[in-house]
Amino acid sequence: MAGEFCPRFQRAIELVGRRWTGPILRALLAGEHRFHELLATIPGLSDRLLSERLRELEEQAIVERSVDPGPPLRVSYRITAKGRELSDAFCALATWAEKWIELEGAQPPVAVKLR
Amino acid sequence: MAGEFCPRFQRAIELVGRRWTGPILRALLAGEHRFHELLATIPGLSDRLLSERLRELEEQAIVERSVDPGPPLRVSYRITAKGRELSDAFCALATWAEKWIELEGAQPPVAVKLR
Repeated sequence: MAGEFCPRFQRAIELVGRRWTGPILRALLAGEHRFHELLATIPGLSDRLLSERLRELEEQAIVERSVDPGPPLRVSYRITAKGRELSDAFCALATWAEKWIELEGAQPPVAVKLR
Repeated sequence: MAGEFCPRFQRAIELVGRRWTGPILRALLAGEHRFHELLATIPGLSDRLLSERLRELEEQAIVERSVDPGPPLRVSYRITAKGRELSDAFCALATWAEKWIELEGAQPPVAVKLR
């Protein structure tokens, strides 16, 4: 790729790389979710941060909120066309992560001694 | 892509998405650079933050430092094999950014009135 500085690229990578934004988008790329479903899918993510990140992603028109007035009222979040086109980049990064990222505290496979 | 939570993916996207890391890697994917060349390539990046980000990337084995003792002493930074394999993800994200990211303060093209 060209190495010259590109402010659009910087904006994009820092947007998707914000804490928790990657896992939220990954879940929404797989399908529409309700707020509590997103919370349940992503371990460690708080209500407050999920709301904040969803609001940012709505402002960027990457995610949209859909309200079914019910009853019962149901609020869901889904990816927009703009967000959906992140999937190539996300798939490529997931492939890279699978190969190269080691998790702290992950144990190497135990060698089984055959008797 | 699968939507289930993947800690490797989260680690990867938040690593490359840290402030300034994207543009630094983009420059290094295009070729080896000296410290001052990186500074000159990326507007707004300070000495201190460039050092910090390069150190993090060295710790992750994404970038390596090469020292030519000279004289004059020359220190350069280059991408490793692990770093080079980010290029698919970076290219896909650059394509997305080119299409979807608008820069604040960017002016729409002026319509030229032909007389």
